[in-house]
Parts: sequence; C-alpha cells; structure tokens
Amino acid sequence: MATIDWRARAERISQRLERLAQVTDEPGKLTRTLLSPAMREATQLTGSWMQEAGLQTSTDFIGNLVGRTPDIGREPISQTPGAERRTPNAKRRALLIGSHLDTVRDAGRFDGGLGVVLGIEIADIFRSGFDLPFALMIAGFSDEEGVSFQTAYLGSRAFCGLLRPEDLEVSNQEGSLRHLLGAAKPCRPAGPQIGTEAETEFRLLPGTVTGDQLIGYFEIHIEQGPVLEDRNLPIGVVTAIAGQSRFRFNWTGKAAHAGTTPVALRKDALLGAAGFALRTEDACSRFPGLVATLGELNVSPNVSNVVPGRVTHSLDVRHQEDSVRVAAIAWLCQEAGQIAAERKLGLERLLVQETPSVVCDPDFITRLAAATKSVTGDSFQLPSGAGHDAVVLSQLCPAGMLFVRCRDGLSHHPDEFVHVDDIELALRTAVRFVESFGGQDQKVIGD
Amino acid sequence: MATIDWRARAERISQRLERLAQVTDEPGKLTRTLLSPAMREATQLTGSWMQEAGLQTSTDFIGNLVGRTPDIGREPISQTPGAERRTPNAKRRALLIGSHLDTVRDAGRFDGGLGVVLGIEIADIFRSGFDLPFALMIAGFSDEEGVSFQTAYLGSRAFCGLLRPEDLEVSNQEGSLRHLLGAAKPCRPAGPQIGTEAETEFRLLPGTVTGDQLIGYFEIHIEQGPVLEDRNLPIGVVTAIAGQSRFRFNWTGKAAHAGTTPVALRKDALLGAAGFALRTEDACSRFPGLVATLGELNVSPNVSNVVPGRVTHSLDVRHQEDSVRVAAIAWLCQEAGQIAAERKLGLERLLVQETPSVVCDPDFITRLAAATKSVTGDSFQLPSGAGHDAVVLSQLCPAGMLFVRCRDGLSHHPDEFVHVDDIELALRTAVRFVESFGGQDQKVIGD
Repeated sequence: MATIDWRARAERISQRLERLAQVTDEPGKLTRTLLSPAMREATQLTGSWMQEAGLQTSTDFIGNLVGRTPDIGREPISQTPGAERRTPNAKRRALLIGSHLDTVRDAGRFDGGLGVVLGIEIADIFRSGFDLPFALMIAGFSDEEGVSFQTAYLGSRAFCGLLRPEDLEVSNQEGSLRHLLGAAKPCRPAGPQIGTEAETEFRLLPGTVTGDQLIGYFEIHIEQGPVLEDRNLPIGVVTAIAGQSRFRFNWTGKAAHAGTTPVALRKDALLGAAGFALRTEDACSRFPGLVATLGELNVSPNVSNVVPGRVTHSLDVRHQEDSVRVAAIAWLCQEAGQIAAERKLGLERLLVQETPSVVCDPDFITRLAAATKSVTGDSFQLPSGAGHDAVVLSQLCPAGMLFVRCRDGLSHHPDEFVHVDDIELALRTAVRFVESFGGQDQKVIGD
Repeated sequence: MATIDWRARAERISQRLERLAQVTDEPGKLTRTLLSPAMREATQLTGSWMQEAGLQTSTDFIGNLVGRTPDIGREPISQTPGAERRTPNAKRRALLIGSHLDTVRDAGRFDGGLGVVLGIEIADIFRSGFDLPFALMIAGFSDEEGVSFQTAYLGSRAFCGLLRPEDLEVSNQEGSLRHLLGAAKPCRPAGPQIGTEAETEFRLLPGTVTGDQLIGYFEIHIEQGPVLEDRNLPIGVVTAIAGQSRFRFNWTGKAAHAGTTPVALRKDALLGAAGFALRTEDACSRFPGLVATLGELNVSPNVSNVVPGRVTHSLDVRHQEDSVRVAAIAWLCQEAGQIAAERKLGLERLLVQETPSVVCDPDFITRLAAATKSVTGDSFQLPSGAGHDAVVLSQLCPAGMLFVRCRDGLSHHPDEFVHVDDIELALRTAVRFVESFGGQDQKVIGD
C-alpha cells in the first residue's frame, strides 16, 4: 500500500498553479486565449508535468492537450468497468479527468487550471501506487471561456468531435476560427504546405475520443460561487449544470425634459425596467433555486436632466431543472408585459441563448458523495450555475463534477483563491472516487 | 388706432425663426454656441431685424445683442412706471424683453429664438402704432444653454454685471472662458492689441444694465414640456422657475457570478438603485408638483452574467416651492438609506448643484394673466421646470414669463415645433401685457 504525502501533493498543485499563472498573453495580468503564444507555452509546461506523471501526451488541431496512461504491457481485468478483454496493445477504456487551460482576461489562477493540475496529480498517484484496471486520460482543453470568439467550449467540442463545419465560421477582428486553425501550423495536419492556400484548405478533423472509449468524464473545478463558503464546506458534489436562458429586453418610453414634464405625463423607460428588476428578485423567491439577473443595463439618452426614453438590459435566468426555468420565464414575461401595459411603455424581448440543464450521472454523484463523506465526514450537493466542459462531455459519456470552495465566492478575478487545505481534501476525494471504479478488491489507497 | 395684421406678423416670426435655424456651426444640425462663427452670424442677422424695427443695436464683450428704442426727442410721461422726468436725452427706464440666441447641440428652432424674434416684433408694433412712455429693450443673450462650458446663463449674467472674475476660469478642451473672451476680438475692449499677451489681459467689464434702469424683464419662451398641450391651451403664465437639486448617488454592492451566486447571498447594487428609482415616483405623489428624475444611470461592470457591483446615478429634484423640495429630498434620502441598510449596500450621496426657486413678480403675473384672459378667453398658470434667463434678470428687476405650447412637449430636438396660431396668440398677449404698463389711457392697440 502506497503511503501518500497528501500535503506535499496539494502544495505541489498550488505551486504548479502559481507557475502556470505566470504564463500569460498580457503582462501583469493572467490571460490565455485559444492558440495564443501563452496557450502554447502553458500547453508545453503542463505537458511536461503530464510526462513526469508517466502520461503519453498529444495535442489536437485546436490545441487541446491530453495525457494518457500507457496501455502496452497491461492486462485488462474483467468484471470491472472498461475492462473488456482485448489484446494488450488495444486501447483500454479510459476515465477522462480534465478541465481547461484557457482563461478569461485578467483571470484568477484556479478556474480551469485547478482541474487539470489536480488531474495530473491523480494520475501520478495511481502510477506510483497502483495499476488501475482502466486507463486514465487527463485533458487540458484549449477553449472553454470563449474569449476569442464569444462562444463556449470550442476545445472540448473539438475533442469530442462535436464541432460542425459551420462552427468554424465564427470570427473576430483577426478573422475566422477556420483561418486561425489553418494558420496554427504546429496543429495543422501533415502534408505539403503551400502558404496561405494551405491555410484556407483547413478541414475539420475527427475528435480525439468517442463515447465508447470512455468510462466517463470527471471534472474538478472551483465553485465560482459563495455557497460552499457560506456553508463552511471545502467541497461539494455537483448535481447538474443549470440550464440557462439569456434575453435582451428593450423598454421604450419617451425621452422628456426632467424639469418640465410632470410625472403623470411621463413614459419613463427606466422606471419600467426598475420595476421589472425587482420582479426578478420575486421570481427567485417564487421558484426556489432560480437565479435571475439583470447584469447589463443601458439607459438612453442617459443624461441627468432627461427622462429616460429607452432602456436596454440583459436577463439571465438559470435553474437546474429546465421545467422550473421555463415556468419562471413565463411568469417573468407576464410581469414584464403587465408593467409595460401599466406604464404605456413599448417592450421587446429577444431570446439570445438557451441552454438546457445537464444532469450529472447519478452513479457518479453517488460515488462522489460517498468519497466526499469518507474524506470530509460530510457530503453536500449543489447545482452549478456556470457552464463547464462537462456539459459537452456529458453528450459522450457519464459525467460528474466536484466543486472546491473558493474565497469570497470570487472567480474571473486576479484575487480568485483556493486554500491548499481544500485542494488537499479535493485531491483525496478525487482519488477515492477514481479508486471506486476499480472495485472493492482494488482499494489500495488509504489515508 | 393702429390696425395690426397679427397673422402676417406671426408668420414673419415663424419665417425669421426658420431663417435663423439655418445659421449653425454644425451642417445639417442646428447648433450655436457662445461666440462661435454661427453665433456671430445669428447676432448680425437678428441685429438687422432689430434695426428694421427701429431699434439701436449694440453687443457686449460676451456677445449679447441688445436693441433699444431711441430716446432722443421723446418726452417721458409722469405717473407711469419708468417715467421719471428727465432731460429728453437722458435714458428712460426700459422694459427689457428677451431670450437667448445660443442653442443646445442639434437643437430645435424655437427654444430661445422665439422670445428674441417675438420681442423684435413687439418693438416693431409699438414703433409703428404708439409711443410707449418708456423704452423697450430687446435682448438676445449669447449663452443660456451653457453648451461650451457646462455652465448656464453666462450671457445674461454678463449682461447684468453678475459675472465674477472666477467665473472666467471655467474651461473646456479649447481653454478657459477668459481665453475665449480675450480672443474674441470684435468684443474686446478697445486699446493696443499685442497678440496673445493682450488676450491674457482680458478683464471683466461691467454689465450693460443696472436694476434701476429697468422696469422689468419679460421673456416669452416655449414651454419645453407637455402641460399646455395636455390642457389644450396655447399659452400659460409662469408662476415661478422651480428650484432644483441635483445629486449623484453611488450604490456599492458586490459583483458576483450571475449563475453561481444564489440571490440570498447577493449584494446587487442595481436592485438597490431600482428600488430607489421607484421611490422617486412615490415622492412625486406625496409631494404634489414635485418632479424627481433618475436620468443618468450607469452599471458596473455591466456584463450580462455578472451581478452589478456598483451603480451610479443622477437624481434631479425640482419644485416651485423650496420648502417642498427640501422636504421631498429629506424623505427620499431616508428611503435610500433604508434600502441600502436592508440590502447591505454601500450608499454615497453627493449634492452636485442646488438652485433656489425664483418666483415671478406678482404684478407681472397679474398683468400677464389679464392679458392672456383678454386674448384667449382663458388664463392658466404653471411653474417652469427648466431654468431661463429670467432667473438671472430677476436679481435686477421684476421678471415675468409667458410660455407658449410646443408640440408633444418636445424641446432640445430638431422636431421642436410651435404652431403659428400659438405664436400669434402669444404675440397678442405680449403686446397687451406691454401695453398695460402704459396706463389705462395709453391703450391703443385693440383687436
């Protein structure tokens, strides 16, 4: 039985995250975006840690990094998941553990990176301690945040073979994704290179994995919210990734002189929007678990002595159950319509985006809950309000997630922080979870 | 008794306003600012109409235009206001009629110009019909809107000798008001000019008038609000120019992820501001005649998936009675404090500006009400929610104002419109008002 120095490993994870945070496209800030120079450097660095952990590394055309335990010379074992009897050289099924290596602009160092670096540590533990009856794959996805093209999960979608040709046509100031991928020489498929001609000939490649190659996907991620901290818990098991509806609301009243227009003769678009903003709070009481947010709001003409003639705002509604989200939106739209009618305001609603909720695999939840309970003495389940690569991977295989408490609920910010004690507990829980797939007799890693 | 073709005169006023609207600093838009090329051209054009009406014209250092009925050869009459017996050459007291010739950016053609052009028409009527026992002065002030330096009434303040040396230090991108006045050669005091040296030596000159030279000030202005239109009245007598308090409110909560932060754990600055916005509407019901407006509101970070961490907004509160305004502000501040406490938000309030109300002269109100009644068969009084040059002139002499209905309550907009029928009624009322100072026996201008 291997003796594991959990503390030293947790500290190594912290140090690696600190090291990784120095790899940035923007000096003084942590920013890494799809196929950028910093992403290449981060991929190299992370790949070297994977190799130290005995993993065979590769990258794909969109820059995803993956490390896999070697298959040669291993004998798959029956009666355990992923253990079909094959020739030793055939690839065994794998448990994929991962998260993303890209960041938002001016990011913190735990969002994404924690799951990748922690995954490498898990692989290292199993390498030195025990041969699992299935492979481990550790992934560092290249684009989860979608900073470059305002679209999420490009990395994991490519990894899963779920990118469609039309997805390559998204573009930013520097051109399309197709152009970026074509110009990314190190990732380009082999063959004669004839300058820009070759670039325009870029064709989508198949994904790195298919569902039948995977036992499942497991992602460790910082919570990015205050729930665990509020409950004084280091880790929590994710039940589902909330479905989300994003709307744009336009309230149209009539701009008027703030001094000369009596209130009874006004059509103040801001008062309509203000009334609606308070209704979103009511909705969160009526529909437990709902979060509804007006995050962006712009007033026109936005001058102190002019009654607002027009207000445009976002509405973001999330719930782990799609039926509740749909019901809440219906209620909110009815309230908005009533406010508009009472105030004689014009109202337009535009659905910008709708994502159904993704329920985590019940078996994964059970295993994670048991692991959490055995490590921390407690077990808590919560939905994820933010999207994660697990949304994409769940289309291929069972998926589960473990959340780690972050200070102040803060994320997407340089002050993002996870305590090394919590990293240690997450690592112990994750190892116990992975171990659970080996069967009762395979349990080797104790405390 | 003179027969007056009111219709033809009203149409001439309309035509002159149309002509004046073509004199602009911005092609395609009506914009005239202090001492700009367009202001000089508008001053010349308006001055030529004054001269046609028999007025002696002059301008002062800040570009105000004034036309005055000639005094030579007139014999002041006793027992009437402004009729102290003097030598024929001594200046008689004058009734000053005016408004401003500058505009906001992309302005309408009636705001300001109407009062000046209508004033010239009044002077022309009295010139051809009857000799008043006092002088008429018609003023076109050069800066009421304050576009250049974000400060109001520069023109009329200079005209009244109320500009202070420190007022010259206001500045914009192109420099200080002192610099602008120094560079304005045609307005510069006589003396040797030694280039930029001379410009920096600009010194404030005394005003054009003192209070003892004036019977009073009378301003005709478009209402710039919807009250007269709503009541189906062409004109109204102004009771007071509302006092105004302008505040800046800063609500500080905590920016947080819109998906991961349950509502109970949020400090949403926008919800605080929204609650307060609705309270301003309540305040207008509690304190009749009050107008309170949140015209400018900015959210930070203003991103659809982030709970607003900070909201900054203006608050504009006006009432014709200062005591009511003060009481309403106290109530609003108490409500804001309560909202901030309940929501655990930080709240800062900054008083940006406070202007007491200016009550119109009761005798002027009585005369204007009588004139309105005799011309339109009806008489209606209303406060002005906007500031006017009358605010400044009221510091020197009695002041009164007549409002003219504008379509849709619209002002500060190219679609600003006053019907020629209403101009005619305003002209007839104004003439009757001016006539009232001549005494019963002086009434010569009938219908």
